[in-house]
Amino acid sequence: MKERIFTPGPTPLPEEVRLEQARQIIHHRTAEFSEIFKQVCEGLKYVFQTKRDVFTFAASGTGAMESTIANLFSSGDKVLVVRGGKFGERWSDIGRSFGLEVIPIDVEWGKVVDPEQIEEKLKEEKNIKAVFTQLVETSTAVVYDIEGISKVVRKTPAILVVDAISGLGAHPLLTDEWRIDVVVAGSQKALMLPPGLSFVSLSEKAWEFTKTSTLPKYYWDFNKAKASLEKGQTPYTPAVSLICALREALRLIEDEKIETVIERHRKLAEATRKAAVAIGLEVFGDPPSNVVTAISLPEGIQDKELRKKLKDDYGVVIAGGQGKLSGKIVRIAHLGWMDKLDIIGVISALEMSLLELGYDLELGRGVKAAEQVLINDKL
Amino acid sequence: MKERIFTPGPTPLPEEVRLEQARQIIHHRTAEFSEIFKQVCEGLKYVFQTKRDVFTFAASGTGAMESTIANLFSSGDKVLVVRGGKFGERWSDIGRSFGLEVIPIDVEWGKVVDPEQIEEKLKEEKNIKAVFTQLVETSTAVVYDIEGISKVVRKTPAILVVDAISGLGAHPLLTDEWRIDVVVAGSQKALMLPPGLSFVSLSEKAWEFTKTSTLPKYYWDFNKAKASLEKGQTPYTPAVSLICALREALRLIEDEKIETVIERHRKLAEATRKAAVAIGLEVFGDPPSNVVTAISLPEGIQDKELRKKLKDDYGVVIAGGQGKLSGKIVRIAHLGWMDKLDIIGVISALEMSLLELGYDLELGRGVKAAEQVLINDKL
Repeated sequence: MKERIFTPGPTPLPEEVRLEQARQIIHHRTAEFSEIFKQVCEGLKYVFQTKRDVFTFAASGTGAMESTIANLFSSGDKVLVVRGGKFGERWSDIGRSFGLEVIPIDVEWGKVVDPEQIEEKLKEEKNIKAVFTQLVETSTAVVYDIEGISKVVRKTPAILVVDAISGLGAHPLLTDEWRIDVVVAGSQKALMLPPGLSFVSLSEKAWEFTKTSTLPKYYWDFNKAKASLEKGQTPYTPAVSLICALREALRLIEDEKIETVIERHRKLAEATRKAAVAIGLEVFGDPPSNVVTAISLPEGIQDKELRKKLKDDYGVVIAGGQGKLSGKIVRIAHLGWMDKLDIIGVISALEMSLLELGYDLELGRGVKAAEQVLINDKL
Repeated sequence: MKERIFTPGPTPLPEEVRLEQARQIIHHRTAEFSEIFKQVCEGLKYVFQTKRDVFTFAASGTGAMESTIANLFSSGDKVLVVRGGKFGERWSDIGRSFGLEVIPIDVEWGKVVDPEQIEEKLKEEKNIKAVFTQLVETSTAVVYDIEGISKVVRKTPAILVVDAISGLGAHPLLTDEWRIDVVVAGSQKALMLPPGLSFVSLSEKAWEFTKTSTLPKYYWDFNKAKASLEKGQTPYTPAVSLICALREALRLIEDEKIETVIERHRKLAEATRKAAVAIGLEVFGDPPSNVVTAISLPEGIQDKELRKKLKDDYGVVIAGGQGKLSGKIVRIAHLGWMDKLDIIGVISALEMSLLELGYDLELGRGVKAAEQVLINDKL
């Protein structure tokens, strides 16, 4: 049986990316590598929709999140953190580990923050240095209104820091146009790579923060990253094979065009939700993201049983709930290298598995609903 | 023309490692990945010659160096750093970035520290928390006497921290037997992987230091790494494709046996040195390492010209000097997936290139000297 993964990272690797990784390694302190790295940096700017530098770290996404804290802040700095899921909690945890005074804006899991709430908090609290949020809170499968939040934050001296690790490439994120100060991303999501690389872009306003930050940093030092970038290099040994593979992934995105990539994610997500509803399931999280669809487990269906059957009988790997949603939802990602028939497949496997586990449904109804969304679409 | 790299990291990838990376990605929060990761952790213990945990980070070697500082120390802690090259300087730079009081033991580049010097310093200075050194100082191509240093440090409350990034697998390093407190390693050296993973092992004495450290940490947190390791996991998304490839590389090392791997490095290094001397060149650095051979550039031969010719005419990539040795030496690595004929090839390319650049030598003399070392050897 073939294995098919529908997890919100890692996501399936296109053949171009896989084969690129099988090539013999090259040395990084060479003109050849610098040329590749420069192409990668340009491609990242296109995906980030920014004219500014994008820094690349040999680290997974949490590393790039930490780099933002270490480079832009000092112990005691007061920051707002939107905390509506596991990754909101992560901002809060990293901030506190580094001595920041974290003021949480707690959001019910599955709901999103209203930009007005942030505006109020920014008025209420003095000296807020930054607002931290997600583009997509992967644990609850919702998408935040980053454009709206940005309009509120940009009127203040605070910077807006967006964890777009799972959301970049699946939702519109106009970094420069929306004036987002910091965007953090990771390789194993819409960028269609294995995990092991993460990225940060900074506005001029954010860059100013590097000048006053006193937190210790070395591996994550943005000043060193910037100085090296100008020479087509990274300060420390880069993850060469992943960077070479990233060039291939970026080519695929450029060929498809970023707007089309995002539209494809939107359509696949819509098909997944319509299918779930058609077989009587409830979609969890509002507004739902293009990254992953969370489905509330119907009565009598156990998370582990369902995921085991999907895996054992159909080769399908989906995600369970995280933290307080563990055992309450399952999550089906439609992220990265995914197409229409991938979605038909996962819906079909879900129908068959649920029926076998005693859930009452009419086979084919979910697939039909998905087909009605996907037919005639040039994805 | 084929490209052949003789750089002290990255090193050439065996076919098993390359093909493993071309496989479709698997999700990391699965029993399948945990099983792979557990095998990897066991294999690492074998290479490190330790019974204790080895932590794996998605980061290059400098990241694991930083993790050691962040987890074991506090601002103001006094430490000794053996500074005999670029990587000794790196310990000193990271330490100072994190507010440690770094007392350097400066060693002439190309020479090594005498354990007695460390013993004296440890007596002279009060409250030294740690001694930092390299196994191999890659920039000067020398190997330090870690066993001797350990005998001195273990008598004090200080811990010994060894950057074995380039040396592990190329020189004996009996972590437990020699009672080395911290060993740091990287993937792109004798482990025959691309860069992007780094490793740390800790003695019980070192682990005690985690209990008093007040430096901020999150991504590098050893306590989180330990708690996850027990479940066959990492705290944050691991570099899945590199970890799967590492299992293959570790299998190759286990099949060959670590003692044989080290002996192979020793023999290839000896052949390289004998060849260099046979064509009238001077080997730089004493005692020379099994990792890389540094050769002083003879009068009239320019570093860049020589390396360009090697690359353009023979497809051979070697390294130049770093820092104050830039333009004065070239470095030929015999590290990782290397065999007898690789060495014959690089020596031959060196002979032909030097002659073409006007250096007076008899073709074949270097190769002959290398053959005399390598003949009849079951490498």
